[in-house]
Amino acid sequence: MTDQEPTTVSPVSLTAEDRSDQPPVTPELEDLYRGFEKALLVPLWTRIGDLMPEHPRSRARPHLWEWKTLLDLGARAGDLVPVGRGGERRAIALANPGLGGRPYATPTLWAAIQYLMPGENAPEHRHTQNAFRFVVEGEGVWTVVERDPVPMRRGDFLPQAGMNWHAHHNAADEPMAWIDGLDIPFQYDIEGQFFDFGRDGLTEEEHGTPDRSRSERLWRHPGLVPVSDIGTREGTPLLRYRWEDTDAALTDQLELEREGHPGTVEPGHALVRYTNPTSGGDVLPTVRAQFHRVRSGAETAPRRETGSSVYQVFDGSGRVTVGEVSWSVQRGDLFVVPSWLSLSIRSEASPSDSDSGALDLFQFSDAPVLTKLNLFRTHVSHVEEKHA
Amino acid sequence: MTDQEPTTVSPVSLTAEDRSDQPPVTPELEDLYRGFEKALLVPLWTRIGDLMPEHPRSRARPHLWEWKTLLDLGARAGDLVPVGRGGERRAIALANPGLGGRPYATPTLWAAIQYLMPGENAPEHRHTQNAFRFVVEGEGVWTVVERDPVPMRRGDFLPQAGMNWHAHHNAADEPMAWIDGLDIPFQYDIEGQFFDFGRDGLTEEEHGTPDRSRSERLWRHPGLVPVSDIGTREGTPLLRYRWEDTDAALTDQLELEREGHPGTVEPGHALVRYTNPTSGGDVLPTVRAQFHRVRSGAETAPRRETGSSVYQVFDGSGRVTVGEVSWSVQRGDLFVVPSWLSLSIRSEASPSDSDSGALDLFQFSDAPVLTKLNLFRTHVSHVEEKHA
Amino acid sequence: MTDQEPTTVSPVSLTAEDRSDQPPVTPELEDLYRGFEKALLVPLWTRIGDLMPEHPRSRARPHLWEWKTLLDLGARAGDLVPVGRGGERRAIALANPGLGGRPYATPTLWAAIQYLMPGENAPEHRHTQNAFRFVVEGEGVWTVVERDPVPMRRGDFLPQAGMNWHAHHNAADEPMAWIDGLDIPFQYDIEGQFFDFGRDGLTEEEHGTPDRSRSERLWRHPGLVPVSDIGTREGTPLLRYRWEDTDAALTDQLELEREGHPGTVEPGHALVRYTNPTSGGDVLPTVRAQFHRVRSGAETAPRRETGSSVYQVFDGSGRVTVGEVSWSVQRGDLFVVPSWLSLSIRSEASPSDSDSGALDLFQFSDAPVLTKLNLFRTHVSHVEEKHA
Amino acid sequence: MTDQEPTTVSPVSLTAEDRSDQPPVTPELEDLYRGFEKALLVPLWTRIGDLMPEHPRSRARPHLWEWKTLLDLGARAGDLVPVGRGGERRAIALANPGLGGRPYATPTLWAAIQYLMPGENAPEHRHTQNAFRFVVEGEGVWTVVERDPVPMRRGDFLPQAGMNWHAHHNAADEPMAWIDGLDIPFQYDIEGQFFDFGRDGLTEEEHGTPDRSRSERLWRHPGLVPVSDIGTREGTPLLRYRWEDTDAALTDQLELEREGHPGTVEPGHALVRYTNPTSGGDVLPTVRAQFHRVRSGAETAPRRETGSSVYQVFDGSGRVTVGEVSWSVQRGDLFVVPSWLSLSIRSEASPSDSDSGALDLFQFSDAPVLTKLNLFRTHVSHVEEKHA
Repeated sequence: MTDQEPTTVSPVSLTAEDRSDQPPVTPELEDLYRGFEKALLVPLWTRIGDLMPEHPRSRARPHLWEWKTLLDLGARAGDLVPVGRGGERRAIALANPGLGGRPYATPTLWAAIQYLMPGENAPEHRHTQNAFRFVVEGEGVWTVVERDPVPMRRGDFLPQAGMNWHAHHNAADEPMAWIDGLDIPFQYDIEGQFFDFGRDGLTEEEHGTPDRSRSERLWRHPGLVPVSDIGTREGTPLLRYRWEDTDAALTDQLELEREGHPGTVEPGHALVRYTNPTSGGDVLPTVRAQFHRVRSGAETAPRRETGSSVYQVFDGSGRVTVGEVSWSVQRGDLFVVPSWLSLSIRSEASPSDSDSGALDLFQFSDAPVLTKLNLFRTHVSHVEEKHA
Repeated sequence: MTDQEPTTVSPVSLTAEDRSDQPPVTPELEDLYRGFEKALLVPLWTRIGDLMPEHPRSRARPHLWEWKTLLDLGARAGDLVPVGRGGERRAIALANPGLGGRPYATPTLWAAIQYLMPGENAPEHRHTQNAFRFVVEGEGVWTVVERDPVPMRRGDFLPQAGMNWHAHHNAADEPMAWIDGLDIPFQYDIEGQFFDFGRDGLTEEEHGTPDRSRSERLWRHPGLVPVSDIGTREGTPLLRYRWEDTDAALTDQLELEREGHPGTVEPGHALVRYTNPTSGGDVLPTVRAQFHRVRSGAETAPRRETGSSVYQVFDGSGRVTVGEVSWSVQRGDLFVVPSWLSLSIRSEASPSDSDSGALDLFQFSDAPVLTKLNLFRTHVSHVEEKHA
Repeated sequence: MTDQEPTTVSPVSLTAEDRSDQPPVTPELEDLYRGFEKALLVPLWTRIGDLMPEHPRSRARPHLWEWKTLLDLGARAGDLVPVGRGGERRAIALANPGLGGRPYATPTLWAAIQYLMPGENAPEHRHTQNAFRFVVEGEGVWTVVERDPVPMRRGDFLPQAGMNWHAHHNAADEPMAWIDGLDIPFQYDIEGQFFDFGRDGLTEEEHGTPDRSRSERLWRHPGLVPVSDIGTREGTPLLRYRWEDTDAALTDQLELEREGHPGTVEPGHALVRYTNPTSGGDVLPTVRAQFHRVRSGAETAPRRETGSSVYQVFDGSGRVTVGEVSWSVQRGDLFVVPSWLSLSIRSEASPSDSDSGALDLFQFSDAPVLTKLNLFRTHVSHVEEKHA
Repeated sequence: MTDQEPTTVSPVSLTAEDRSDQPPVTPELEDLYRGFEKALLVPLWTRIGDLMPEHPRSRARPHLWEWKTLLDLGARAGDLVPVGRGGERRAIALANPGLGGRPYATPTLWAAIQYLMPGENAPEHRHTQNAFRFVVEGEGVWTVVERDPVPMRRGDFLPQAGMNWHAHHNAADEPMAWIDGLDIPFQYDIEGQFFDFGRDGLTEEEHGTPDRSRSERLWRHPGLVPVSDIGTREGTPLLRYRWEDTDAALTDQLELEREGHPGTVEPGHALVRYTNPTSGGDVLPTVRAQFHRVRSGAETAPRRETGSSVYQVFDGSGRVTVGEVSWSVQRGDLFVVPSWLSLSIRSEASPSDSDSGALDLFQFSDAPVLTKLNLFRTHVSHVEEKHA
């Protein structure tokens, strides 16, 4: 709806979705409509079908970006585009084909590949936008959050709540690419953003390459919190959720299922949520992050949610259906699930029944926004249910 | 930024706001940018200044709509446009001149004049959008919420959280107009909306014209709640906040100030917030509503907030300054305050120092959204502060 | 308090309640038991029936104190015992006959009649104990809370959370008596009490006799809160809940019932809870306060709750049954309902069916403690239910 | 329990603590006091010093129980006292010498050694009392909670919220002893207890001896929660906090300190809190559990808290000072810290500066009760501070 609109109001351009029988446009009514336009007014009755639909009809479209393409373009940008103050990051964003050319993966979420060459530094800044990084392959970059160098390795999830200072440096001999997720479109819409530039360089200690960040040493102990740093926070103090932990949690769920015990969300479908250890809630105020493992040969029940998600295939291959669209997917591929379109994931049958044949997917969404505002709904196979 | 955008990506259209020195556009880079377009990708470095500004720079503009104009156009619509199923409501929305012709008062808020002729009924429906009505003049309409007829009179504020069934009927011999406020633009952006049509008619009891709604009889007793209906709710169960209560609260604050006691938010400025008695928080999950009284001759300190507000002058007259713009205002006039623009209100000096010369304003905003997501900030006279 | 209790352990004194077949007491076992005693140890198996009963078996007993007796003894104390620093208050506490002579109405609650002679002052102090006053008759005393003089009149409920400075002065020509409720026994048990002496006298302004406290002027406007004083607090900022509000709320509930609408908790039984307008929760962190009106001729269903309550009859007369005990009650009488004993209230039939024949009762309890710690349970007529 | 206490009131027995100058006891006053007694009333002015002290003065006394003594008596009980339905558990409770012979370690907390012989079973039951086990040495017992067998090994902490079914079985060839902590005294005081007997035997699967409980497989993954089992709970769903996790968290804090980074609560003092992963709060509604490591040679600043704690030395040796009392402590020793008495812990200097020379202590307290009711205060070295 938004793109073609003129900058003056045009109340009579009724869309096909309008449910009302509009009043016949007599000269008097036309004159009234001109009066509305002049006064910067728009009548509800000509727009209600679009503005207040019977259920969400997303402007976004399901779309798949292949990792190969992203990686290739990232590498070319690595050669041609410098990283530095001003542009800030060599990040290339997914632009959903339904959203008018804006760099928005979904109406609320930003997703980009970021690419850093050997020895490069992305300068320090901070902003209200909540962010995370997820690593589908490679290693060698440390993200330095509030002066704490945090390693980034395959499978790691690295959330970072708004207004934390952060920079990145590549300490390896190879380029490294990863995925950035932010709530840029959402904050653009509600207009609450602040951005500050930080120092241009890092200290020697911040250039360090420890195996664990200080954040992990304080906060990555299951069920245990440091009393020196206690207190509920809006964003998680744990800056790195290591792959080995995620992998173990998913493996345990599928094994429990095999033994006949609860654990998976549906047969063959293990699912963990990344949480903030100070609250038990989502890692970021506006972003939910989860990890799925679909056992080889299994298929998930079609499920719809309000709000939108971006998925990245982490391992395995399979077939994904979003609304009417379906794709074969493999490692690194990214796809979006617009609001209220159903999603089903099928893991490709592999010769063995081992977990190694499973389809692994990282997901992030805007569910915390909808949940906190009482607008989160899900629908699975004709059964209405709610998750907190 | 949004309106003129093509439906394909156009990464090189750098705006004046961009803070980065862009890399020189060599043939190789141009080729890369074409590759981005083809792959539906947009580089951050060409857009960062617009997407991640140093502070909110609203797309909305300060604007004033005169009540006289609204009322006149409403009356003409009363003559020409029927109310009924499909169009649902004879509501005419403010369209902010900065928002591309959309019927949005601000990026997140809908504000409209609704007009109902004698004997007319607006049919029953419900929707996830949170709504309220505020009455600047007139009476005679009852809004029927969950089968409870609620009178609407001058100065009354009538909130109604999402998914409550509601209809309206005019039981008087005169037309009646009032203001509707909703979170339509916000819910449009996050795509969580549901809408259901209700019954076409109301029962005889629902057509009643009681002086008090049942909701008031249960919930309008200060500090007292009915144990039969106890429990925290997202939206307030009190469906009518009567003018006499608001007026008394404001009068008390100014009197306390005169006696040398705390009460006002600043000299000459009384301010009350409408709250949900089950939680003490805002009346609606996404909308804050407040009422200001500025003593005759007083002027409020310039104040900025993240998020946007709509104000309606309820009584008195004065001068309002929003950012660089300033207007004389009088009863019924509506104006918008975009995110992070400063607002100052001056009440016109009257001969006597009585409250009767005060400037009274109703305000609603999207503050609960920003507050719950950790994005609410205010700035008054160079002093940074936060309100819960 | 615990003075009369033995200081050595006595493990073998098995009570009749013990459910275990105790092991036969051989010489070896007796020797072991002596070893326990010497080492300050007590075996669970000899005590489990008392310590971990199948359901609460209160040490407190149902008991009724007649108002006439209290008032008469209060008046005699008024003649004989001065009020001043040290003794602090002329308060005479109910001592439940099951609680060993301690001045505890129930295991967690203190209830006392306080008596102040004309012109007398009770000196300023503050303490962590949460307190309230309830006025069954009379007027003329102002309680001065944080320097704000608060009138006390028949039917008024005056809560005052821990660590507020407070004093009282009688500005009338008559003595005045009222009820004090506190969580003294509970805080005695968990040992978190602090107490500070305040100023010995009050200022002239604090000796004032306004019709409304400043607290009421800020906070007694239904659904409206002063933005100058906003923020969630553990104890209510409203220091006086006026009788006219309580009476109106109860009247409304019974009228709604008569019209066929929800409102009462059961037929003929109106019930309101006093709440903290900043949170919608209980007025005090440890004390719940409610007011019941039982229509003439009606009888409430027997109901049990965990935790204990004290009731005072405010008006009317009737019959109250607590567990196996039953009393005729009239204005001013106080009675206690121990944990998990059922309570039923019958209002005396009056010739007319008017509300004026109703039985009105004020109640306070320790329900917030049990609720916050996940221990609150209720049982009504064989139907298990929970109130938040 | 209250058996030895008098059943009549005795108001004139003024204690030394009373701050009031009591009125001279004239015949009239004596007569009045007799009237009070007869009416089951007690005047505040004779008791206020004891009931409302200027700061907490605990009835409990600091006391140390040596592990050797407990273990020896436990072993003798193992020989003489059977475990079975009725007595339910072979648990022997610490009876604080200030608490009149009751089996209470502190006014709110129960602490006992539980002893189970090879092949023995403790029968299934459930109760509202919140419980945990802590293992200072040994292994071989599985506690079966809601049919999930949970291993118990040295250093493990095993919380179990109210109303979970549980039993224990010893699958080893050796007896095993451990510590039980519960809120029995607190629930006794507020009288909200329920207790249900369960099945007399366990299934074969429940008699299993897995290395990890199902609870750990779902919930012991740092920052990750199973979406199949999501939702905030009052008590933690993680039933075993393994020693290896606690040890690693403490080691990390001391290493961070050595590197010059935040982590410890004070020099040489590492401290972790066990938390509920669904809320980030305490593991049990009424009980806080923490683990301290004091570096060899270090001494903690004297610290007072409202509410009481029980400590068990897990490893190392040192000197502990509680109020005026001081003890040398070693592995297994248990001591209590009454409300508002200061605690200081000194680790014995060891030849090397290694962590192996540290003093390790497990602590549990009633802090959640005081915190939720707004009564928690701490005081460290003359600096007032609050922990959430």
